[in-house]
Amino acid sequence: MGILRDEGVVYKAVDEVDLGPNSDQLYLHADVKAPRMAGLLAKVFVWFLEMKLIGSILLYFLKKNNRIQKLVSYGVLEESPLYVPLHNYEDIEEEEVKCLDHGLSPAEQVQLAMDCLQSSNISLQDSNFSFSRWTILDYSRAYASRKLTPLIVAERLISAIVQSSSPVMDMSFFISYDSKDILRQAAESTLRHERGEPISVLDGVPIAVKDEIDCMPYQTTGGSKWLHKVRPCKEDACCVQRLRSCGAILVGKTNMHELGAGTSGINPHYGTSRNPYDPRRISGGSSSGSAAVVCAGLCPVALGVDGGGSVRMPAALCGVIGLKPSFGRIPHSGVLPLNWTVGMVGVLAGTVEDSLIVYAAISGQVESNQPTTPRLHLPMLKPSNMSNIRMAKSNEWFNDCSDDIRACCLRALASLHKLYGWETVEVTLPDIEVMRLAHYVTIGSECTASIAHHLEKLGKSVSGWDVRVALSIYGSFDSRDYLNAQRIRKRQMRFHEKIFSMADVIVSPMVGVTAYEIKEDAQETGELDYVNGAALVRYSIAGNFLGLPAVTVPVGYDRHGLPIGIQFIGKPWSEAKLLQIAYAMEALCKGEYKKPKVFYDILGESQ
Amino acid sequence: MGILRDEGVVYKAVDEVDLGPNSDQLYLHADVKAPRMAGLLAKVFVWFLEMKLIGSILLYFLKKNNRIQKLVSYGVLEESPLYVPLHNYEDIEEEEVKCLDHGLSPAEQVQLAMDCLQSSNISLQDSNFSFSRWTILDYSRAYASRKLTPLIVAERLISAIVQSSSPVMDMSFFISYDSKDILRQAAESTLRHERGEPISVLDGVPIAVKDEIDCMPYQTTGGSKWLHKVRPCKEDACCVQRLRSCGAILVGKTNMHELGAGTSGINPHYGTSRNPYDPRRISGGSSSGSAAVVCAGLCPVALGVDGGGSVRMPAALCGVIGLKPSFGRIPHSGVLPLNWTVGMVGVLAGTVEDSLIVYAAISGQVESNQPTTPRLHLPMLKPSNMSNIRMAKSNEWFNDCSDDIRACCLRALASLHKLYGWETVEVTLPDIEVMRLAHYVTIGSECTASIAHHLEKLGKSVSGWDVRVALSIYGSFDSRDYLNAQRIRKRQMRFHEKIFSMADVIVSPMVGVTAYEIKEDAQETGELDYVNGAALVRYSIAGNFLGLPAVTVPVGYDRHGLPIGIQFIGKPWSEAKLLQIAYAMEALCKGEYKKPKVFYDILGESQ
Repeated sequence: MGILRDEGVVYKAVDEVDLGPNSDQLYLHADVKAPRMAGLLAKVFVWFLEMKLIGSILLYFLKKNNRIQKLVSYGVLEESPLYVPLHNYEDIEEEEVKCLDHGLSPAEQVQLAMDCLQSSNISLQDSNFSFSRWTILDYSRAYASRKLTPLIVAERLISAIVQSSSPVMDMSFFISYDSKDILRQAAESTLRHERGEPISVLDGVPIAVKDEIDCMPYQTTGGSKWLHKVRPCKEDACCVQRLRSCGAILVGKTNMHELGAGTSGINPHYGTSRNPYDPRRISGGSSSGSAAVVCAGLCPVALGVDGGGSVRMPAALCGVIGLKPSFGRIPHSGVLPLNWTVGMVGVLAGTVEDSLIVYAAISGQVESNQPTTPRLHLPMLKPSNMSNIRMAKSNEWFNDCSDDIRACCLRALASLHKLYGWETVEVTLPDIEVMRLAHYVTIGSECTASIAHHLEKLGKSVSGWDVRVALSIYGSFDSRDYLNAQRIRKRQMRFHEKIFSMADVIVSPMVGVTAYEIKEDAQETGELDYVNGAALVRYSIAGNFLGLPAVTVPVGYDRHGLPIGIQFIGKPWSEAKLLQIAYAMEALCKGEYKKPKVFYDILGESQ
Repeated sequence: MGILRDEGVVYKAVDEVDLGPNSDQLYLHADVKAPRMAGLLAKVFVWFLEMKLIGSILLYFLKKNNRIQKLVSYGVLEESPLYVPLHNYEDIEEEEVKCLDHGLSPAEQVQLAMDCLQSSNISLQDSNFSFSRWTILDYSRAYASRKLTPLIVAERLISAIVQSSSPVMDMSFFISYDSKDILRQAAESTLRHERGEPISVLDGVPIAVKDEIDCMPYQTTGGSKWLHKVRPCKEDACCVQRLRSCGAILVGKTNMHELGAGTSGINPHYGTSRNPYDPRRISGGSSSGSAAVVCAGLCPVALGVDGGGSVRMPAALCGVIGLKPSFGRIPHSGVLPLNWTVGMVGVLAGTVEDSLIVYAAISGQVESNQPTTPRLHLPMLKPSNMSNIRMAKSNEWFNDCSDDIRACCLRALASLHKLYGWETVEVTLPDIEVMRLAHYVTIGSECTASIAHHLEKLGKSVSGWDVRVALSIYGSFDSRDYLNAQRIRKRQMRFHEKIFSMADVIVSPMVGVTAYEIKEDAQETGELDYVNGAALVRYSIAGNFLGLPAVTVPVGYDRHGLPIGIQFIGKPWSEAKLLQIAYAMEALCKGEYKKPKVFYDILGESQ
């Protein structure tokens, strides 16, 4: 066990517990505090127990006296629950895909990803597109050609962050950044480039990290004012460590919806990440800042965490790529445990190629004690190298969005059909709304089990007003709610397995509405807007609840010039095919991409 | 979806749902019943929400209005939760073990099991033991030699059941049996034997089935007065169907603790299965009748279900073998879904050999849609064919039982060391009592999620008084209780993995107390006796909570002549080794086995 406290036991880490015969572990005798009862006494007890109020009180004391509260309910321990949505797999051979061996270094995986990009990769300079962002390869080429150094890029980036944070602009992209730390990393990278020894194509490339992922030297606030105080950040998360080992410059912690408990990205503590396409509007959440910095050109890539669309949804609202891999593909160590079975690290990037490079850098489970996952497959990204893709489309669900979104996504499907001959398979995906609610019960219950013991000490008022509502609802679920949600989960898994026997991917819009306006009254208290919230998460849930990989690609703009994203959801472990599909989709749309109102041209002098 | 009812949706079976474009599945739009709130309004709302009583009422309506109750909490569906405690495995080669291919028929598996028994298998007739029960092989030989027919055996058995059920004896072994059905099966088996074409060694062997497992033509009551009314039994459970396909005679449904929700086996509806060693005492639970019929010689084998020791515990109290295989080893279809992650079909038998034969008959997952499990391994059962077995023993836990039990189990260990050289490794298994409570939260929560919707319709008073207390407690767990219990589960899994790196098995007594007396006042209301209850389940939990295989072997008697069992707990999927160990243990003790006071000598004229 560990420390016996009044409210609950604090359990020792497993590896610190001595399992030898002379262990200091206390053997707890069953100390049952309940007299034997039978006959009339038992009947009277049942009568009381089944009364509403008196029964609740009796049960409270029964559980308390028998140490269920202290040892189970309020126990503090680091373990996740035993079971997570890992899928079985067969190590199938896919076409046009590289299978990587286990145990490669992140830099080696990045190199193999580079081999998957088409050699004719065109640089911005030569493009005839109306607008595109600088890519990882653009950074790498600029450094290789000595036109620029990471140090110069870092200085420009810092001044862009400072400018965007000024009261006038108030973009609130970051929760924390440390100019000195950025410059130190940039100087080291510059030295490597000067020696002609960059570690990988990511060497010197700025990458931002959602403030839900541990990244030294920053604290991990989870968008709150208190979480970092009870859970100090002591080392990089595994995914961050991998990026660092590739030479990437980690430029700071991006803003997010407090505790990931909302979709707007409105944060009363750190300000609201504004949408670079229209700064009066939200950038979406919860990975609001990560989407906004990629959109605004500050970094080609950022990391987010997607527990209920939190990567894909802001990516769609900000017109960038959002990739959420299969559950278990990326190690979760060093990510705030706000839930255990629905959240996953994801990648936000300006292009599909860049999302592939960073996906390759951070993917693959650590050996020790992790459940088995299949080998990493990397797709060859070539224009239109696939035919016969079947896309499942559930009409009523697909159509349950604004007119502009629906029209835009249908146009995208039509051009996929026209140019590549891909077919749409009409299907019915049952109980989508049931799945949304069951997912809500799940993420809420897991969030409570993870953080409620902190709040019992600190008091509820440390959180923002909107999050306090969320936490109240989260804490109200009983075990039957949670278990029935898990049964609905199994049911949905079976439906989706059947759909995937008919089609390669499921296609849908990414969100039901485009970025909406930040209202004045929401800035201090956050905002309770479950109608818009439901519309934002409408298409996200299968990715999280079923652990399926999913990607969003920008395919156009609504009448206000706000970005619209389409979504492809894949079979378990099918990221490679999903990225090929996303790449083909992007190729058809990128000629029309528009420049955001707030944009920083970090590499070029002008654009 | 399915039928929309006021209290909750009744979901259609997945395979009945049309996933085509013209499906009749209703697309449910998100019908969010919550106004947008921000600013002062949000604050006021939070103030109310965080008040104890008003907050609960607000939350109730929030969940109700937003259909969480109807669609999730009170939804009626057949799926189990998504995640179950299946262990990863490597298909290791063990010594002295037969690896069976997938896809063999039950009769083929039984034949391979027969090849594992030592050829010198001695019949009762020749034995010099003070007492032993007739075995499967004894039945088979008697039929082969034409000394007896299954029909004669069936007639003797029926008259024994009738006698034991008489008011004078009141043994309450069975909840239901159908003489006609028994005789019909026996006549068919007799014909097969007459033709010289028995299907397997099980042909004509009487086997009883716990009334928690579907077996035609009986209803499955689960020991209750109501469950069979809302869940009619329509076909044999998979394990029963397999026994039937081997020619076994299914002789009826054995008594059990109501809903498996207790350990005494005291059942106010069907009487209390009395212990054949002392009919004033309990036979343990919840598989009370299955243990008692094997003990009393009515059948060589019976099936039980073990969710918290419910096979092993009564086996120990009745002095028979109790085997609980690894989670997932035996198909669970057709077993009452009283829980999903802790219960498992198990085998009660007079000898280790017989438990192996029946284990071989019923093991192996059905192909369709089941998670992958390793191939079935069957052990060669030869005396003392193993050396170097290391048995982990956690002293304080081991010693937390009555003096007689402790002394008897220590003697057993000493003789294992003396005769086979097996070593005891002293270890500390931490948090055993925590695990018991976490398991209780788990099984209680799962039971509620599974059956509460029935009770909401029928009313609580359909259950016995003691079960009503259990159901009240079960229903009081919130999702945090359940999730923290699952975190404790992971923690315990890691502890046990470490222990298994030090030892082949964990050894312990099977129960903390021997069979206690049935008190008069308990007969009508059942009995609330959590002190004895905790002592009975003390050593059972790892088998259920962690899905580990475990077996109990009788090793002696206490001062009242009541049986004492020892327990061996194995690594995941290590049933083969576990049975070898049990066989070696049995060999050392069976010379001392005593005859129960109530015993029916079905094969012999006298004994």
